[in-house]
Amino acid sequence: MHDAQLILDRCDELAALSSHADYLERVHLSPQHRAANDLVAQWMTEAGLSTWQDAAGNQCGRIEGREDGLPALLLGSHIDTVPDAGRFDGMLGVLLAIQVASRVEPGTLPFALEVVAFSDEEGTRFGTALLGSRALAGTWDDEWWSLTDKDGISLFEAFQDFGLDPARLPGAFRRPETLVGYLEAHIEQGPILEDADRRLAVVTSIAGARRFALTMHGKAGHAGGSPYDRRRDALVGASELVVEVERLSKQGGVVGTVGKLEAFPGGVNVIPGRVEFSLDLRAEFDDDRDAVLAQIHAAALEIAARRGLEFEQHEIYRADAVVCDLDLRSAIEAGIRATGDESPLAFWSRAGHDGMAVVAATPIAMLFLRCAGGVSHHPDEAVTKADVAAALEAFEAAVRAVADQHAL
Amino acid sequence: MHDAQLILDRCDELAALSSHADYLERVHLSPQHRAANDLVAQWMTEAGLSTWQDAAGNQCGRIEGREDGLPALLLGSHIDTVPDAGRFDGMLGVLLAIQVASRVEPGTLPFALEVVAFSDEEGTRFGTALLGSRALAGTWDDEWWSLTDKDGISLFEAFQDFGLDPARLPGAFRRPETLVGYLEAHIEQGPILEDADRRLAVVTSIAGARRFALTMHGKAGHAGGSPYDRRRDALVGASELVVEVERLSKQGGVVGTVGKLEAFPGGVNVIPGRVEFSLDLRAEFDDDRDAVLAQIHAAALEIAARRGLEFEQHEIYRADAVVCDLDLRSAIEAGIRATGDESPLAFWSRAGHDGMAVVAATPIAMLFLRCAGGVSHHPDEAVTKADVAAALEAFEAAVRAVADQHAL
Repeated sequence: MHDAQLILDRCDELAALSSHADYLERVHLSPQHRAANDLVAQWMTEAGLSTWQDAAGNQCGRIEGREDGLPALLLGSHIDTVPDAGRFDGMLGVLLAIQVASRVEPGTLPFALEVVAFSDEEGTRFGTALLGSRALAGTWDDEWWSLTDKDGISLFEAFQDFGLDPARLPGAFRRPETLVGYLEAHIEQGPILEDADRRLAVVTSIAGARRFALTMHGKAGHAGGSPYDRRRDALVGASELVVEVERLSKQGGVVGTVGKLEAFPGGVNVIPGRVEFSLDLRAEFDDDRDAVLAQIHAAALEIAARRGLEFEQHEIYRADAVVCDLDLRSAIEAGIRATGDESPLAFWSRAGHDGMAVVAATPIAMLFLRCAGGVSHHPDEAVTKADVAAALEAFEAAVRAVADQHAL
Repeated sequence: MHDAQLILDRCDELAALSSHADYLERVHLSPQHRAANDLVAQWMTEAGLSTWQDAAGNQCGRIEGREDGLPALLLGSHIDTVPDAGRFDGMLGVLLAIQVASRVEPGTLPFALEVVAFSDEEGTRFGTALLGSRALAGTWDDEWWSLTDKDGISLFEAFQDFGLDPARLPGAFRRPETLVGYLEAHIEQGPILEDADRRLAVVTSIAGARRFALTMHGKAGHAGGSPYDRRRDALVGASELVVEVERLSKQGGVVGTVGKLEAFPGGVNVIPGRVEFSLDLRAEFDDDRDAVLAQIHAAALEIAARRGLEFEQHEIYRADAVVCDLDLRSAIEAGIRATGDESPLAFWSRAGHDGMAVVAATPIAMLFLRCAGGVSHHPDEAVTKADVAAALEAFEAAVRAVADQHAL
């Protein structure tokens, strides 16, 4: 339990690195990201890893295997957060990975062991997620350089401000032949484990998700002077669509969320002339998701036509569903069995994870850990020390199971 | 037409005093407010008025009547704006008033003539409107000192930053015996004059308006991990209410607008845990308005109960309907007739105006001027030079008609 307590204490230390005094927010390439990388590098060093920051700002560490220079089994997760975040989503996976590495004797495994703390998974700052893991997997898109944050700073400028050279970004790419696979431990972010009274589960696949930036354009006007038959109120139109997103998603068996919405110009006595909002759609099967997307788009066009509005939709993120590797899954299952759970639960992840990007370079699998009430992306995010201890035991055993697979 | 062109040019000059490079926004006690007061004071001086800034930041000017120290007929409007504003709402009334004053020979009227450029009518910065005219009318509420703007600056601090002493605020109050009445010229901010092919109208009454800050509280959570039956999505609830506000207002014959709405924390993959929005309700008759308000509140509570949300409603502004003074109305009508319009249109103002506050100190009346498409609170706000010339002629004639009433 000592190691589990250490991990929880370190989650607290990382949670203190926030750009806001009253809640946790740590975004890509921020001063707090710099401080988190430094802290993680220090912990990696203490665990016996050699460390470096890659060309995408991911913090990495490595222990050699039986020979120097062997392909590596990657363990990791991300250290960026959503606004007003909890302290375990991402960070817990990085700390579990470091602790597993600290338990491995250098020079003993049939592969190198690497830990990676991805720089950006949530996409909070630039709207596009998985920037860190996409750089590592070689699926970077140069169009992203011109993405801007809310202060108008481009990703290109943010790289430079962080001390990174955008021209060197391709150096973050890990060729598939240098990798054995990728394992990630993560809180479930859902209530299934808690409802089943179990600590751990193996992930079968990661939901396919698509995200859109939506805009409803109307015409601003004085709230008093504009009769209803002359109004083109962008907010009433957008609100109708928000309600439709929920109805159509439920009906189609997918998960649709409008997380962001703001009316402009935003005067209390001004009819909104423009609304900017977001859509996040995810499902176990890509076809279900895309069918509901088509229904939502049709509803948006109907609302816009009826209300004299214009609707715009830009895709800002797309990841199709990813199936976890069967060999790595069985290693995770062996890890869970090592904790005394003879029949590990297996289900799909409704949330996206770095593995969705990493799979372009190497096979992936994931270990899920129970969290209180299924709550995540909220300061109430919580785990128990006993569950963390079980996850650490399972994660270490999973790594040794992969080693056994490679020894055969 | 020379004076009308001058007025339009000065509207352009004022429109350049904006806190944003790409659109017009000039709020209470801002550096741009300072610059606007200075410019207006200069124009007042050129027009022969003695000038001062009162204890509430209103810019004032005065021409004495037949004797020094007579009660004053006030002419005026406001020089603050909504975000992304047009250039005529408020400013045009101030400039028409200055131009009327420039045509009056000092020492000739049976009252003093004063022009006032109110510091705050829209309430953009602190949420509570009519701060300038309420100070003048003696209906200031000391609770307002702790109102804060979006940067957390209190009204008290903003007064000090502007160089005003909050302790001297009562000095802005004009005792009723020092006033003869208040006349304001303003764009209609609605389509009635344009539809009737008329330039000018007299206002019969100003709509009663109430404004509320609304909050829907839910629980933030990860967009993927939270099944629908566990969600408490504040935005879907708020969106249902926005649609209801429109439906109930139409049905009740009142005008309801949600001008401001933002979801928090605002992550694209986070279920909104809180929505802050506004409600503006206005009607010719206060009873109609309050009946619809009760229906909206009941709808909000029903939505909140059904969705596991909490609804909060705080009144930030209330002004009951104000009937214009019959003598001053007949002076305005005489002014309109002087432009050749033998049967002036008369109707109620759906928008609020400084007169709603000034009426606590002295009788009021208003002259409406046609604007293009009824558009206001939008950069497309427009008037014609010929209409401005007619308004100037009518406004001057109205002042002389009030003088005739007082000469009897």
